[in-house]
Amino acid sequence: MAGGSPCASCKLLRRRCAKDCIFAPYFPPEDPHKFAIVHKVFGASNVNKMLQELPDYQRADAVSSLVYEANARKRDPVYGSVGIISYLQNQISQLQMQLAFAEAELLCIRMQQERSLANQHVIDIHEPSSLFCATASPAFLNP
Amino acid sequence: MAGGSPCASCKLLRRRCAKDCIFAPYFPPEDPHKFAIVHKVFGASNVNKMLQELPDYQRADAVSSLVYEANARKRDPVYGSVGIISYLQNQISQLQMQLAFAEAELLCIRMQQERSLANQHVIDIHEPSSLFCATASPAFLNP
Repeated sequence: MAGGSPCASCKLLRRRCAKDCIFAPYFPPEDPHKFAIVHKVFGASNVNKMLQELPDYQRADAVSSLVYEANARKRDPVYGSVGIISYLQNQISQLQMQLAFAEAELLCIRMQQERSLANQHVIDIHEPSSLFCATASPAFLNP
Repeated sequence: MAGGSPCASCKLLRRRCAKDCIFAPYFPPEDPHKFAIVHKVFGASNVNKMLQELPDYQRADAVSSLVYEANARKRDPVYGSVGIISYLQNQISQLQMQLAFAEAELLCIRMQQERSLANQHVIDIHEPSSLFCATASPAFLNP
């Protein structure tokens, strides 16, 4: 019972809304759709049982997740929230593939850079010979 | 009715399994858990209504998704399959962040490479002077 009005659940089920009604804190009378959709998919009796099995502090989250699932089932009567799970899993596979490509490309570039640095080092080591050539060439030109 | 035995649903609900029982094709008697979990979460009456609203060819998929959802709710009575959705969404956010970092790093490296190539080009343009030095040196040495 919220503010004198029966909660959305008791209104829909046409029963007296008791002071300790288990639905009342989560299904206010001003949002009748919230209970209607949960009732259509799970049934009031099942929702009641599910809430009874949970401590008070977890019930609001449980109701939110039931409402989410029920709306997903309404939008997609074949796959419901499993359709969303499947879509997200595909998105994850695509992202993992894109990430693997990007990381492989980075690895390739890093290896090229290391090879290039190593070659640079070889050139540095051989630089005296080019210096030798430069100093030797006049001698060669003037035997 | 499958092979003379009532289907798992009719067995659990203790009713006669008709020849055209809507549950029979999807809830065989050898897998009683499959119907039990769906019945516990959604209720046989709701599952019946949901299947009635779907064409035959979509019912098997609908049953599979309901079984998946019901099992998720059994494992996680507070969040059910919404908990899986939330977990997957977090994974997507992390992957998108990792991908953004990898792509930013690739962009950085490519810009560095382009800058380096541009500098190389500048060196190439100036290379005739070093060539000039090389050809000029004998003349300088032999005035």
